[in-house]
Amino acid sequence: MSNVVLSKRGFERFKTRHPWVYKSDTLSLPQEVGIFPVEEETGRVLGYALVNARSEISVRVLTYWKEASVDILIARVHAALDFRESLNIDADSYRLIHAEADELPALVVDRYQDFLVVQNGSAAMEVYLPEILEVLIERLQPTGILGRFENKNRELEGLSTENTVLYGEVPDTIECREGEVRYLVNPYTGQKTGAFLDQRENRTLLGQYAAGRGLDVFSYHGSFGLHLAGGCDHLECIDVSEDALRRAEENMQLNGFEHVVFTAANAFDRLRELEKAGEKFDTISLDPPAFAKRRKDLDAAYGAYKELNLRCMKLLAPGGILASSSCSFHVSDSDFYEMLGDAARDAGRRFRILERKTQASDHPEMLGVPETRYLKFALLQAMD
Amino acid sequence: MSNVVLSKRGFERFKTRHPWVYKSDTLSLPQEVGIFPVEEETGRVLGYALVNARSEISVRVLTYWKEASVDILIARVHAALDFRESLNIDADSYRLIHAEADELPALVVDRYQDFLVVQNGSAAMEVYLPEILEVLIERLQPTGILGRFENKNRELEGLSTENTVLYGEVPDTIECREGEVRYLVNPYTGQKTGAFLDQRENRTLLGQYAAGRGLDVFSYHGSFGLHLAGGCDHLECIDVSEDALRRAEENMQLNGFEHVVFTAANAFDRLRELEKAGEKFDTISLDPPAFAKRRKDLDAAYGAYKELNLRCMKLLAPGGILASSSCSFHVSDSDFYEMLGDAARDAGRRFRILERKTQASDHPEMLGVPETRYLKFALLQAMD
Repeated sequence: MSNVVLSKRGFERFKTRHPWVYKSDTLSLPQEVGIFPVEEETGRVLGYALVNARSEISVRVLTYWKEASVDILIARVHAALDFRESLNIDADSYRLIHAEADELPALVVDRYQDFLVVQNGSAAMEVYLPEILEVLIERLQPTGILGRFENKNRELEGLSTENTVLYGEVPDTIECREGEVRYLVNPYTGQKTGAFLDQRENRTLLGQYAAGRGLDVFSYHGSFGLHLAGGCDHLECIDVSEDALRRAEENMQLNGFEHVVFTAANAFDRLRELEKAGEKFDTISLDPPAFAKRRKDLDAAYGAYKELNLRCMKLLAPGGILASSSCSFHVSDSDFYEMLGDAARDAGRRFRILERKTQASDHPEMLGVPETRYLKFALLQAMD
Repeated sequence: MSNVVLSKRGFERFKTRHPWVYKSDTLSLPQEVGIFPVEEETGRVLGYALVNARSEISVRVLTYWKEASVDILIARVHAALDFRESLNIDADSYRLIHAEADELPALVVDRYQDFLVVQNGSAAMEVYLPEILEVLIERLQPTGILGRFENKNRELEGLSTENTVLYGEVPDTIECREGEVRYLVNPYTGQKTGAFLDQRENRTLLGQYAAGRGLDVFSYHGSFGLHLAGGCDHLECIDVSEDALRRAEENMQLNGFEHVVFTAANAFDRLRELEKAGEKFDTISLDPPAFAKRRKDLDAAYGAYKELNLRCMKLLAPGGILASSSCSFHVSDSDFYEMLGDAARDAGRRFRILERKTQASDHPEMLGVPETRYLKFALLQAMD
């Protein structure tokens, strides 16, 4: 038996066209890892999928009714690169392959200047990685490719969890450009594949509104701060990690920004302190970590997001701008805007919503695959 | 007694900072029409509001804790005009005042070239309209201002329902510009104040994707079609109204587009016909009227939206673009995208969401006032 056979429930799941089918929804699975036909109980072939019996997500569907082989993966890599070329991105660092949203399940490829960083959470996809890398090398001629593999999911798939240089050489630090801003990335240790590329367009957008006194809450290595610094006369970056702030400072120096102060502190505490001191800010970015990593964290997360937003709203000068983000998948759009509405009421202020954004266009969303949309970004302006 | 006194429930409503308080949530109301203080039962003044005891929405809050007079309306008109100037709009026709979202309840002012069209659904606001018009005339120096007053809501407020030229002269036809496109508007009889200005940015956006064979479903006077025609080799405009199509044809001629055909038909029927004939299109705009004008229409509306989207999805060539709109306030964002997901499944196709948009930025949204957000616009691309 070398095909996937779906249970009735698995067949129902398959029909929704969500690309994931769980092991518990299959009747039998091939013991090898790779691309296999998917059948219903009657033996009718429904499509083809990446299959790994060891993984909880055993079946990652590639095609419906059509045959699939490595050729389809190669064609999709080309399509993904074509799509990014069509976007006219004003940056040298952005996402090239966005997994399910490029119909290449579990595979992420980011570009940092002349280097690529690969993440892959599927043992079946890994079988074809050499051929995929060949396409990337041929089309993009990168100086080096890093496999950013220290990920628990890979262990569950039976894959190595050691970062590996897959091609050429990859340095510890890469200088990247995003619009008019330059920043340093460490591809081996930075968040995700090195930086939060998904906020790229939102950062550039906020930069257009930056003015007066600026505040960057959860600044990390200065992602939003660098775009605020260009327009603001004064900027404070807050992060609990001194290491992150050191890198933020380095990035500010790289861009010649000297009007920035760095505060190593818990954001909740520092915002309270600023409020007590009667400080006001004209442009604030609030980009907290994902407080709701699991659905059951949602209530606590709602409270934490609300408190942070409430405090930032109170700190805004009349007409000021608050850029508020949430990267928790489990916080829905409507949860997020409800939370902002609650915070505004408690802050006793009214806001216009200038923009509702999500991930940058190089991180597209697949209709019917909710997991491909997780980022919320609201640009709010105080009415007085 | 010349103040508004809120009931307990009215006070709770007031505290949510939604600007509307219903008559049934007040204990007493001034019999005159204008700006009055709002009190809770204890006599404490909570804020100021536009008040009309004859209207169901008797109280339209202007300020919280602060005094208000006509001066605050004037200041907000200036702020609304400043905001539009800051947007750098590439069109000569757009919204200048967006009612609650500019903190000017019930007042809409649209600009068509050198003319203004005013809609107002509040008798209390109407008291101050002369002073508001003075500001508009002084700052914008329009050739004429039309009061587009034939609206049932005005009757409920005790206001005249006759269209009235409020200043200068207003012709039957105004030639407007939107990006690279020109179109004719009849301010006396056109939809809303003459045209659907809220889709302006979405039309320009779709124009950037227009290619190959185009289809404009519910074309009205060619709003989306004019932007499709620039990029498409061939375009079919479908509308049930022959009058609308005549104006669409006039607009196409005005722009020198000669590769457009016009089909006067029910959209459901025509889409079925095109499917039977095996036709395929590369770029489709689907902009149906509001099927869910009331909450109880929602189920029927869902079915109608889904059928239309399903048929358009089936008509798309590989890689084709579908721009799908819904202007029903009662269809939420999540309803809309769920409906699109259902339609895609039934059509047996997968789509990337390239853009999720709402009204143009000159029709902003007020946080906590859901009525100020009603338009959904999805730009979808077929994955194969």
